[in-house]
Amino acid sequence: MGRDVFLVATDGSRAKAEPWLAAFGRRLPHLDVVALGDPFPRPSVRYAAAWKHPHGALADLPNLGTVFSLGAGADHLVADPTLPAGVRIARVVDPDLTARMSEWVLLHVLEHHRQARRYRRQQAESRWDDDARQPAARSVRVGVMGLGVLGVDAATKLKAVGFDVAGWSRSPRDVPGIASFAGRDGLGAFLRRTDILVVVLPLTPDTAGILDAALFGALARDGRLGGPVLINAGRGGLQREADILRCLDDGTLKAATLDVFEREPLERASPLWRHPNVTVTPHNAALSDRDAVADLIAGQVLALERGEPLRHVVDRERRY
Amino acid sequence: MGRDVFLVATDGSRAKAEPWLAAFGRRLPHLDVVALGDPFPRPSVRYAAAWKHPHGALADLPNLGTVFSLGAGADHLVADPTLPAGVRIARVVDPDLTARMSEWVLLHVLEHHRQARRYRRQQAESRWDDDARQPAARSVRVGVMGLGVLGVDAATKLKAVGFDVAGWSRSPRDVPGIASFAGRDGLGAFLRRTDILVVVLPLTPDTAGILDAALFGALARDGRLGGPVLINAGRGGLQREADILRCLDDGTLKAATLDVFEREPLERASPLWRHPNVTVTPHNAALSDRDAVADLIAGQVLALERGEPLRHVVDRERRY
Repeated sequence: MGRDVFLVATDGSRAKAEPWLAAFGRRLPHLDVVALGDPFPRPSVRYAAAWKHPHGALADLPNLGTVFSLGAGADHLVADPTLPAGVRIARVVDPDLTARMSEWVLLHVLEHHRQARRYRRQQAESRWDDDARQPAARSVRVGVMGLGVLGVDAATKLKAVGFDVAGWSRSPRDVPGIASFAGRDGLGAFLRRTDILVVVLPLTPDTAGILDAALFGALARDGRLGGPVLINAGRGGLQREADILRCLDDGTLKAATLDVFEREPLERASPLWRHPNVTVTPHNAALSDRDAVADLIAGQVLALERGEPLRHVVDRERRY
Repeated sequence: MGRDVFLVATDGSRAKAEPWLAAFGRRLPHLDVVALGDPFPRPSVRYAAAWKHPHGALADLPNLGTVFSLGAGADHLVADPTLPAGVRIARVVDPDLTARMSEWVLLHVLEHHRQARRYRRQQAESRWDDDARQPAARSVRVGVMGLGVLGVDAATKLKAVGFDVAGWSRSPRDVPGIASFAGRDGLGAFLRRTDILVVVLPLTPDTAGILDAALFGALARDGRLGGPVLINAGRGGLQREADILRCLDDGTLKAATLDVFEREPLERASPLWRHPNVTVTPHNAALSDRDAVADLIAGQVLALERGEPLRHVVDRERRY
């Protein structure tokens, strides 16, 4: 009887798996840590860690008990119909990743609020112009969609900077200092009071495509920024990119900052790259620090082996 | 005997004085509110409010008791040798202005920390590249020079975002969560641990020209950003622009973000406009909201008339 196997299942290229093999190998020396494509006895696989694995790669592993997502989202695992129902999915809840997401959100909210694009243009023209009126943060309404760990942290920090912050989530949440809206019933009121929409929702059948022309059209028209702004750091599947482009061009949206896209990497032909009111970042708002993620997952494996319960388990019904 | 006069002394153009005349006229209807150049009986002037007034404009006003700065700094008043010693100077301490300064500081610290310039360049080339390693904020050391109201607020908010923050001030200050350095003796140790230097110092004979090649050369060389970064939102007189340019070109500085300049407006010929690692904003990090400033100054006038003490008095010896 060989040793138990910990399988690293990434999107196929060996180069992406390599550093994870080293990171888990160091932390779990009693296990055989292997990648997809390596030879290993399938019944020995007890654990897997996955990021955008090919569907099927986690099937036919009769003793696979737990699969860990290598990032904050688990939609790539929940969406795999070949993953047996009995396999538990655990997310990474990394305080470091949460802090990184909030850095990115603050940067891009402040970019719009402080008209950074305007001042870069003036600089390019060697032009000194300090006449722009500048609203105070307290008179700009930021709305955070998604009040999980990421959304609450971002909302709290935006509030500390001075913005007028509200949040929206599937079910009611109570966050100190943040006006809270919930469910489809609360969505209209939430959007009507929102000048800058920050999206950190999980991708589920309920949220897929939620960022569409109808939603953009419901945002506040009476704000201090000259039109509503969309900032999506959740998942590309939340947004309809054709609607974003149309709403930017007809003035329904003033600007958009996107870290995620319907298809990633964003294809070179996408007009989003070149739109004057769009900021693109390459899905790196909150890159996981490999060592931090490996510590958290290896810690969960060791805890399981001591008979402790699995934490951050994904509800496969709710899908996050 | 005519009414008491409140004199608005701005940099000369009537257009700059006009909105202040209206703002103070509404709030102080019992006074005659006039601008430089208007006819008024000089002995009737009891109060003045000034911003970069021509030296001499506040002399020969025998009953002038108090002059209010129209902004956060009072260096333009302290520097006027024709202002009689008996005239008290009061600064504006506006919570709204403090919050605006911190917005600007956070935006520009995060710009450097999150490599925003790199991602704008990638976007301009329609290039998806998420391979850049990104240090966490806790591993980036921000140093705030100046721990008055502005510096403490900025330092506290930078700390809340996660940065490793220290502060330096003329005399020791105790700010919760912030490592504190003081005086010329503490400057070396402060600079050695600083990756991003944020300057919100007042301009005094002690601080004039303090941001020079020697200071830049003392900043940390072992940081996570590939070289130290200068961010000046204090006063242009603090910096030696020739030194900044030289240090950017020889690698002593990686980048600079400047809101203030030796001469303002920054002249079109300045190479700062076009330097690839310089960000210029037109001295608008913390524009005063006119109504807020007028409220604060008119409130002080009414308090004086009730016999209450003047607040936020400038120490003309210390010069701020």
